[in-house]
Amino acid sequence: MTTANTPSPAPAATTRRKSPLGVAMIGYAFMGKAHSNAWRNVASYFDVPAFERKVLVGRDAAAVSEAAEKYGWAETANDWRTVIERDDIHVVDICAPGWMHAEIAIAALKAGKHVLLEKPLANTLAEAEAMTAAAQAARARGVQSLVGFNYRRVPALALAKELIAEGRLGTVRHIRAAYLQDWLADETSPMTWRLKKETAGSGALGDIASHAIDQVLFLLGDQVTEVSGRTHTFVNRRPGAEGLEDVTVDDAAWATLSLASGAIASVEVSRVATGQKNSLKLEIYGDKGSILFDLETLNELGFLDATAPIREQGFRRILVNEPEHPYLEAWWPQGHIIGWEHTFTHEIRDFLLAIDGGTAPSPSFEDGLAVQRVLNAIEESAAAKSSIIQLAGPPARTAPFEGA
Amino acid sequence: MTTANTPSPAPAATTRRKSPLGVAMIGYAFMGKAHSNAWRNVASYFDVPAFERKVLVGRDAAAVSEAAEKYGWAETANDWRTVIERDDIHVVDICAPGWMHAEIAIAALKAGKHVLLEKPLANTLAEAEAMTAAAQAARARGVQSLVGFNYRRVPALALAKELIAEGRLGTVRHIRAAYLQDWLADETSPMTWRLKKETAGSGALGDIASHAIDQVLFLLGDQVTEVSGRTHTFVNRRPGAEGLEDVTVDDAAWATLSLASGAIASVEVSRVATGQKNSLKLEIYGDKGSILFDLETLNELGFLDATAPIREQGFRRILVNEPEHPYLEAWWPQGHIIGWEHTFTHEIRDFLLAIDGGTAPSPSFEDGLAVQRVLNAIEESAAAKSSIIQLAGPPARTAPFEGA
Amino acid sequence: MTTANTPSPAPAATTRRKSPLGVAMIGYAFMGKAHSNAWRNVASYFDVPAFERKVLVGRDAAAVSEAAEKYGWAETANDWRTVIERDDIHVVDICAPGWMHAEIAIAALKAGKHVLLEKPLANTLAEAEAMTAAAQAARARGVQSLVGFNYRRVPALALAKELIAEGRLGTVRHIRAAYLQDWLADETSPMTWRLKKETAGSGALGDIASHAIDQVLFLLGDQVTEVSGRTHTFVNRRPGAEGLEDVTVDDAAWATLSLASGAIASVEVSRVATGQKNSLKLEIYGDKGSILFDLETLNELGFLDATAPIREQGFRRILVNEPEHPYLEAWWPQGHIIGWEHTFTHEIRDFLLAIDGGTAPSPSFEDGLAVQRVLNAIEESAAAKSSIIQLAGPPARTAPFEGA
Amino acid sequence: MTTANTPSPAPAATTRRKSPLGVAMIGYAFMGKAHSNAWRNVASYFDVPAFERKVLVGRDAAAVSEAAEKYGWAETANDWRTVIERDDIHVVDICAPGWMHAEIAIAALKAGKHVLLEKPLANTLAEAEAMTAAAQAARARGVQSLVGFNYRRVPALALAKELIAEGRLGTVRHIRAAYLQDWLADETSPMTWRLKKETAGSGALGDIASHAIDQVLFLLGDQVTEVSGRTHTFVNRRPGAEGLEDVTVDDAAWATLSLASGAIASVEVSRVATGQKNSLKLEIYGDKGSILFDLETLNELGFLDATAPIREQGFRRILVNEPEHPYLEAWWPQGHIIGWEHTFTHEIRDFLLAIDGGTAPSPSFEDGLAVQRVLNAIEESAAAKSSIIQLAGPPARTAPFEGA
Repeated sequence: MTTANTPSPAPAATTRRKSPLGVAMIGYAFMGKAHSNAWRNVASYFDVPAFERKVLVGRDAAAVSEAAEKYGWAETANDWRTVIERDDIHVVDICAPGWMHAEIAIAALKAGKHVLLEKPLANTLAEAEAMTAAAQAARARGVQSLVGFNYRRVPALALAKELIAEGRLGTVRHIRAAYLQDWLADETSPMTWRLKKETAGSGALGDIASHAIDQVLFLLGDQVTEVSGRTHTFVNRRPGAEGLEDVTVDDAAWATLSLASGAIASVEVSRVATGQKNSLKLEIYGDKGSILFDLETLNELGFLDATAPIREQGFRRILVNEPEHPYLEAWWPQGHIIGWEHTFTHEIRDFLLAIDGGTAPSPSFEDGLAVQRVLNAIEESAAAKSSIIQLAGPPARTAPFEGA
Repeated sequence: MTTANTPSPAPAATTRRKSPLGVAMIGYAFMGKAHSNAWRNVASYFDVPAFERKVLVGRDAAAVSEAAEKYGWAETANDWRTVIERDDIHVVDICAPGWMHAEIAIAALKAGKHVLLEKPLANTLAEAEAMTAAAQAARARGVQSLVGFNYRRVPALALAKELIAEGRLGTVRHIRAAYLQDWLADETSPMTWRLKKETAGSGALGDIASHAIDQVLFLLGDQVTEVSGRTHTFVNRRPGAEGLEDVTVDDAAWATLSLASGAIASVEVSRVATGQKNSLKLEIYGDKGSILFDLETLNELGFLDATAPIREQGFRRILVNEPEHPYLEAWWPQGHIIGWEHTFTHEIRDFLLAIDGGTAPSPSFEDGLAVQRVLNAIEESAAAKSSIIQLAGPPARTAPFEGA
Repeated sequence: MTTANTPSPAPAATTRRKSPLGVAMIGYAFMGKAHSNAWRNVASYFDVPAFERKVLVGRDAAAVSEAAEKYGWAETANDWRTVIERDDIHVVDICAPGWMHAEIAIAALKAGKHVLLEKPLANTLAEAEAMTAAAQAARARGVQSLVGFNYRRVPALALAKELIAEGRLGTVRHIRAAYLQDWLADETSPMTWRLKKETAGSGALGDIASHAIDQVLFLLGDQVTEVSGRTHTFVNRRPGAEGLEDVTVDDAAWATLSLASGAIASVEVSRVATGQKNSLKLEIYGDKGSILFDLETLNELGFLDATAPIREQGFRRILVNEPEHPYLEAWWPQGHIIGWEHTFTHEIRDFLLAIDGGTAPSPSFEDGLAVQRVLNAIEESAAAKSSIIQLAGPPARTAPFEGA
Repeated sequence: MTTANTPSPAPAATTRRKSPLGVAMIGYAFMGKAHSNAWRNVASYFDVPAFERKVLVGRDAAAVSEAAEKYGWAETANDWRTVIERDDIHVVDICAPGWMHAEIAIAALKAGKHVLLEKPLANTLAEAEAMTAAAQAARARGVQSLVGFNYRRVPALALAKELIAEGRLGTVRHIRAAYLQDWLADETSPMTWRLKKETAGSGALGDIASHAIDQVLFLLGDQVTEVSGRTHTFVNRRPGAEGLEDVTVDDAAWATLSLASGAIASVEVSRVATGQKNSLKLEIYGDKGSILFDLETLNELGFLDATAPIREQGFRRILVNEPEHPYLEAWWPQGHIIGWEHTFTHEIRDFLLAIDGGTAPSPSFEDGLAVQRVLNAIEESAAAKSSIIQLAGPPARTAPFEGA
């Protein structure tokens, strides 16, 4: 990689395939809307291989048709199984709920389709392991896969990764990772599938702790060896279709993670942190410098260089909007901030370039599995009075992030 | 208007035209890229009348073709004159440089095309007046026009407007408006057409003071009666094609404005404010409350309610990302911030709805002319030792902002 | 209590003793300097009973003389034992290191002297229990005592306490408490007595986690029932007088605390958090509101009122410098911020008023013991793989904070 | 000057006078309280020549006695004329209202007393000139004087001065100085002597613009050559003893200042900026760096180094609380912030050292006069439709700031 602002270099033009990649997307709710935005815009900003937004898949024929028209997909379909068999489909983007991930992803990979899969990888560790095996087998056949921890492509966090990799923080000692939301703070907020263990797997843990943990692993390039965890449900019953129903997932969780490097990370997540809307906060403390980040101000990175004279030290607010910053050359002049949705635009850009270049994109299913193992250990520890759980050897890291 | 988050209500479905509006855009540089983004995305988020991105116009055939493919325009053309005569073109979006505004806009309006024109209205007051007359004549024939002071559609500023209109600030006494950038701080930064009076009209004044002044007028719904101004060029010569060339526009300006209401506004703009990237800062002080804003954190609004008990008073940081906030229902869940470019998406949404509803969109050319008169008075005052200039009667306000 | 800004009301003038209280202070290092400042200034700002700064006690005769002159003490002495027997001494202010606390405090209380004791109460739980018993016995004889958790008298935190007590946060669900410093981030920073278990008891835990835990208990008026904890020493050897020596205390610690109310608190402390200088951060999330605080900006309190319309919600920055705020009427006009040292001035003010009024000041030794029990449980849990420790019944709360 | 944290080096011990300086202070309201605090504490933190707080002077015998006891002055007197003649008085600290400054200061200087005078120098330019002449004559006789622009001794601003003097900002182009308060925002706030021209001279202009202008001159070491100004009174009548009375001073003012260096400063002050409590904001933009400051967070300095790689640039928040920072070695460990009142402690420290060393302290009466000339020019310009006023040659700068 030669310049900071091209996280993965575009392959030479001569390697470009003639015919465009056919893309199918499964699901059209929140994530489908966000992914559609990325597919609709990526080629206007980045030099990517040609592709066509072929088909949007959903079970409700009327709803999926409306979504396809609104979001810009050429056709619709109601059965993902037939779609993944189509010869004109080369990429499957899975935005379906977590409990459907394993079945669809494994089938698509087996059918030889490149897979972009929303996070978290799966609802259970067993599913995650099966999916990772499928991804590894597919990769050997040149079929790529990526799990959508989109915050790796926040430019400020990609910059943080660069600074850490360059040694600007020295030895990282501890990390504070928190992801705080408040959409469940109101106890009259209604029951949804996200609050049932059978559909959601877990609550804040799988949904947002997964992001926080992935960031720890991504930014440090490290592995978790030990976990102590705790989960809690502050609001145990919520109004459902038939009166108050039991909430069977956590709405907050806490953990400490020992990392192979010797660093220690604390993780805290909540959906009842009143006033915090979507605040993934990261604080990384090294012996030569530190980094601060908050997703609510995602165009900014806090950085302190402890090798400067003490008289001048202080956390600086870097507005990560210069052409010199990751992904930013494609966008607007300095100081014209970009939105949350472009984390997906960057993700799909890198995914397409990897497919085109025949390389494995990142984060891989192995990365997703690594997160899943930590989530699992947090639940195990929580069930064992927070007692420390040793993690077995980490998964092989076959797909390093190109941006590093 | 019944709900806060729909700045202009969508007309009833039955009024919708059958055939889509044909859109032509002239220019494909920075503003053309930003407008293209809005045209490409607006229908995915908002319920707008049907339109087609027909033709992109530019003089360089190869470059305009490349831009059209990248940004999503069906055809290209090299002569705007022929395009504005086409029967299948109903809307002309003018992103050409300021010195071309008058000619194109007047011709397009005469040809019966709805016109969206980038700010500032024109390079000279005479042009601005002629354009406004053309817009008034066209409006009488049902042909609409809008000058692109896009920051009126920053959700936080639309919210500020609502709060002020509701009386939450009481009597506004003074406003501090500043627009600070630093892209000319480096004295070796090269000469461009933006630094020549004959092409740019003025420097920071027309480019960014125009935004600051429009915000004062927009937020307060007020008119300027007196102006004292000053301009300055800190870097007088810059490297051009043939050695150092004279910079003939200002790179900073200062003014105080008396408003008809009795309020006083200070305006300060600079392109050499090292470290300030794109910081339009607004501070509005009323006897019942105050408002703070900075474009570099455009998803946030500072608001202080001075009618609360003193013990609890303080500027609150409202993250303007709730469905209850202007334009936000269309976007992402709370706390998932949007980018600068969506000011244009909102602008085009409201422009399309106005055309569809047969109402005059806002800001009108009259609004653009009002800003132009203030800019002109600043230059006059600057030439007269900052002595106060009285403004003649303000232009008629025929096109109130629907969001108010 | 009738007004917000007088945390404990002054007793009627008629109850004032004729002869001034004689004060002796033991220790003249960091804490001695800070306490001296408070004794020197308290009567200039607050209406307190008369007292005299009689004697400063320290072992090094020359050093204590110099300190007494500089800080304003009339005499010096080298043996605290003789001083606490003097008839003209009524108050003993103990700023000696933690391992001396128990012996001095118990002796002084037995000698009938009111005791102001720096935190933490003691280095061991056994000492803390003995001291609390002594304090209870003394209190029965009208002899008062206070443990110096001075941050209870940060005006912003006293205001936070008021707001919580008034129900403005509703049911508090979880608290994030962190105390981050970086004075040990440099691994070449030398060995001191604070880094040896035999002299300091513990590291960051006793020194700064004690403050964080006391705040949780103070602000919520709650009790800890369960603890999971972890401690770590990142720099294990530091240069001492005779080469590298072993650091035998923690330099960081983590815990989760279950509270009797059902709330959960996370606590994280570090002396190696590069760039964080003295940052006691508190975040308190209730179902009706939330509070934010950082000791590095101690004149400010963040408060979000979740009962306001969503459109207007946001954390407000209250500059806690109004006459309406706790303790502030005594100081400067609004916006003229006060310094860290005045937490002690307020503490001594309230201590003197309690003595004068014959009431028990707060925080009591029982409060100090409650903190000590939590610290102890954190160490126990840390030694047991972070497994949750149940706390025995909490100490009787005989000395409520008057300011509540 | 060899170290950054000793703004003026202490003279060698051998030069110290044997007998202590006798100090008299005139006035005991807000400023008298603040100065008393400094006199009471300065010797506990700094190595200063011996002095005695001899006498507090005020017309109301009972009130001055109470104040003397509270603030720690040995005696009281009611007639300043007799006090300044006393042989045991060597220093006169004048905290009386502005309209008394000239008479007292000139008399005290003639009587051979060193004078510390609260700002602004005087209510009128004529008085200021006479006072400066008296100070120059006295200085020739070894009698020193200082005008109390105390914000020069905010450690963060002293650091800013150092950074600018070292060239870290390169060529300063423009400065934004604002001083915003809101204590007059409420129109029912009563009439006081501060709102009458005959007693106060001017309103926000003399009271707070004087501070802002002094900072511009201090930080840049520059001189004003041209002034355009404007003043305004938003609330013209306020309730007095006998009903509504006319406010005859400004409550807001605006100016632009041309500086000899070519830099331009804007100045804006207000007492009706609702929500701004005591916010002296400074923004200084150079071609190599920039500085930000706000008095409400006076322990912090914003600094951007534009010579760093663009990728890493950002305003850093320096917590000016390290031993390496001006004045801070005397206070608390890092991160333990100091209060507003210690600007006076630092001022008196430097004043005493200058007297002891026989050097002229800073800011001098000449510095005060320079500010007064600018204030005067603002009023002249305001009376002439804001037309630019040329300033005559600046006063000789005989007393450079030692800290520079």
